[in-house]
Amino acid sequence: MSNTIKPRPLKGFRDFLPEELRFRKQLFKVFEGIFEKYGYEPLETPALEYFDTLMGKYGEEEKLVYQFEDFGGRKVAMKYDLTVPTARVLAQYPDKIRLPWKKYQIQPVWRADNTQKGRFREFYQCDVDVVGVRSMLVEAELLKLAIELFEKLGFKEFIIRINSREILGAIAKYAGSEDKFFDIVVAIDKWDKRTPEETKQDLLSRGFSERQIGMIFECITLQGDTSLKKLENLGSKIGSISGGARGIRDLEEIIKLVDMETYIKYDPTIARGLAYYTGPIYEVTVIDGGVGSIAGGGRYDKLIGSFLGQELPACGISFGIERIIEVIKDKGIKESALVEEKYMVALMEGFEQDAFNLANKLRGEGKIVFLYPEVKKLSKQFEYADKKGFTKVYLIGEEEKKNREVTVRDMKSGQQETYNI
Amino acid sequence: MSNTIKPRPLKGFRDFLPEELRFRKQLFKVFEGIFEKYGYEPLETPALEYFDTLMGKYGEEEKLVYQFEDFGGRKVAMKYDLTVPTARVLAQYPDKIRLPWKKYQIQPVWRADNTQKGRFREFYQCDVDVVGVRSMLVEAELLKLAIELFEKLGFKEFIIRINSREILGAIAKYAGSEDKFFDIVVAIDKWDKRTPEETKQDLLSRGFSERQIGMIFECITLQGDTSLKKLENLGSKIGSISGGARGIRDLEEIIKLVDMETYIKYDPTIARGLAYYTGPIYEVTVIDGGVGSIAGGGRYDKLIGSFLGQELPACGISFGIERIIEVIKDKGIKESALVEEKYMVALMEGFEQDAFNLANKLRGEGKIVFLYPEVKKLSKQFEYADKKGFTKVYLIGEEEKKNREVTVRDMKSGQQETYNI
Repeated sequence: MSNTIKPRPLKGFRDFLPEELRFRKQLFKVFEGIFEKYGYEPLETPALEYFDTLMGKYGEEEKLVYQFEDFGGRKVAMKYDLTVPTARVLAQYPDKIRLPWKKYQIQPVWRADNTQKGRFREFYQCDVDVVGVRSMLVEAELLKLAIELFEKLGFKEFIIRINSREILGAIAKYAGSEDKFFDIVVAIDKWDKRTPEETKQDLLSRGFSERQIGMIFECITLQGDTSLKKLENLGSKIGSISGGARGIRDLEEIIKLVDMETYIKYDPTIARGLAYYTGPIYEVTVIDGGVGSIAGGGRYDKLIGSFLGQELPACGISFGIERIIEVIKDKGIKESALVEEKYMVALMEGFEQDAFNLANKLRGEGKIVFLYPEVKKLSKQFEYADKKGFTKVYLIGEEEKKNREVTVRDMKSGQQETYNI
Repeated sequence: MSNTIKPRPLKGFRDFLPEELRFRKQLFKVFEGIFEKYGYEPLETPALEYFDTLMGKYGEEEKLVYQFEDFGGRKVAMKYDLTVPTARVLAQYPDKIRLPWKKYQIQPVWRADNTQKGRFREFYQCDVDVVGVRSMLVEAELLKLAIELFEKLGFKEFIIRINSREILGAIAKYAGSEDKFFDIVVAIDKWDKRTPEETKQDLLSRGFSERQIGMIFECITLQGDTSLKKLENLGSKIGSISGGARGIRDLEEIIKLVDMETYIKYDPTIARGLAYYTGPIYEVTVIDGGVGSIAGGGRYDKLIGSFLGQELPACGISFGIERIIEVIKDKGIKESALVEEKYMVALMEGFEQDAFNLANKLRGEGKIVFLYPEVKKLSKQFEYADKKGFTKVYLIGEEEKKNREVTVRDMKSGQQETYNI
């Protein structure tokens, strides 16, 4: 075999070249800055876990887990999501992790999935969770955080739709179909993408009667100008059913605490597909984005407990960070604000030491400075500066040195000026 | 199989819990900030590569590469170092990467190596490289950058020892043992750890004569107060040997450009073990650290070319980021300076909304604020704040609300004061 590299990347894996990566890093910094400000703590877990830690956690999707036998004969797997490692960490360090625990995690995960536009085999997930608390204050704070984050990223038209699995459960009871709770979840989760008639047909095919469907529709097409009004109307139907009153009260509490009705709407048709939610659920959508949900989450009071063998309430939000990056790139939101100006010091033969010192002086002033590393025709150096997007080029040659000056060329206008140093 | 998680981590893999991770993130930020300031661009490559890209690059160590067959039957491998992926990237994007290219990369790599104190199977590497230039300005700038970085990290006693593979080559010729060049490299690379007699015995066992050893020793135990003086003395011995003069001139040029003789010393016994260096080489050591080298590198004008099938000069420095973290932790250098103050807002029953709003108000002022997420006895909340290291706790209860005030408890002194809001 040759020692030469055949330059092929693996399908579904990406190299991040400087321009793209700088943008991603800036964005990650914005995320982390806000998470920290809200008192969330960072967590990172290894790329590899014992396979049996991940086993039985992802249902059908388990076949997408990258797994292999290592040199010691251990069955190992690459991280598939951030939830299971979080549960393992909670089980492993009971002395070090003090509850309530507010944590965030931004790390790559690996899935041997089909690749398509915007779907990769290596991609970042970003989870923010609170473990150990049942209070609705947690939900309110997560939503406040999400609003601040999206505002900071320059999103103007987004909406957070909230609902409650307890309300959906009460609706199932109200319609006399408690045993088909998850059928209701799955059927109405597609409400936005279908006509009411299509949803009705779906429910019929799942064995609901016309009368039951009527009662369900009654509960998810509510009158009311505001979210609180809608919830009040819902209360007249399911308020006396166990779980229903609590679900309504939870959402009311969240909406009042956050107190930003422009962004937060009660939407009785948000159901979220995942099985493990137990209380309030929410989804963030860019209104005119055409990209669907960019974040979502909810309360999952039983999931971590089921992994640990002990009850541990939890609630979280997952930011679709790869999708958010796409939306920002498409919209050009704030991208310019994330880019810092960069300068170049050109190199003239015989004045290497002066150029070296000048570059370091400018860096001392906090500037980002690329020192051109070899003597070349000045036109070549300018061409390089232009292609790399450096905004100014500094020069010291014979004339400048004699007069203790420096020449600065503005790469946009092409104008040169000379300054004392 | 049970669905419950048995909390075992894989040997050689680490979870980073918040305190440790925050410290690491701060440190990475310092590194990145300086790299950017010097005009280096970030690069990230995937965790997985085709195995044949890595194959034949690491010699004996190839058996330490994590490799497996993926679902598509592809032989894949986890990243083993940052150099080979960099070479692949250079081969793959000739249109996107403009030479000269200054890049840095901080990413985890995986090695199925024996674990021991401070050696892991998943750890970060941090490489800074310049590709496409032969000028010594590159070396000078890399060393200047290293000095600034270590000063910024609070290291006071460190030294950068430089040498040149061309000088070592000329010494081999001078001693009439050109064919045993690499034996000299390997034998004198351990100079610091052995007595001269031991080095002599090593060289004897490698077939050098007493006379040859005398000539080698003459060249590596040089008189002179300064590095430049030593190089001048060396010149009188090997200055007329091909490569010798150039090696000396290169080091003189670097030393003069950087102009910080407190930190940079010519040391004729630095050899560095790796086969691929072609010019100047350097190692950074903490003087009283007892940890050996914390960074090192050199010029490797042929390595990338050998992977690409086309000549491409390059020069780099690799920061032993995991070891640097250990040194900083052991010495307590600057650690405090990296930690930001964190506050807590306590939660009093019936005043949840006020606490929620206060937390957001404080965050608006740029403070890092943990809102205690459920109503509990105040003593419990204070205990939590204490354990988590929050410096102040803010409170709003009935009295405070009535007077439009807030009570602030200083967790160190235990003193409470009340302010208007």
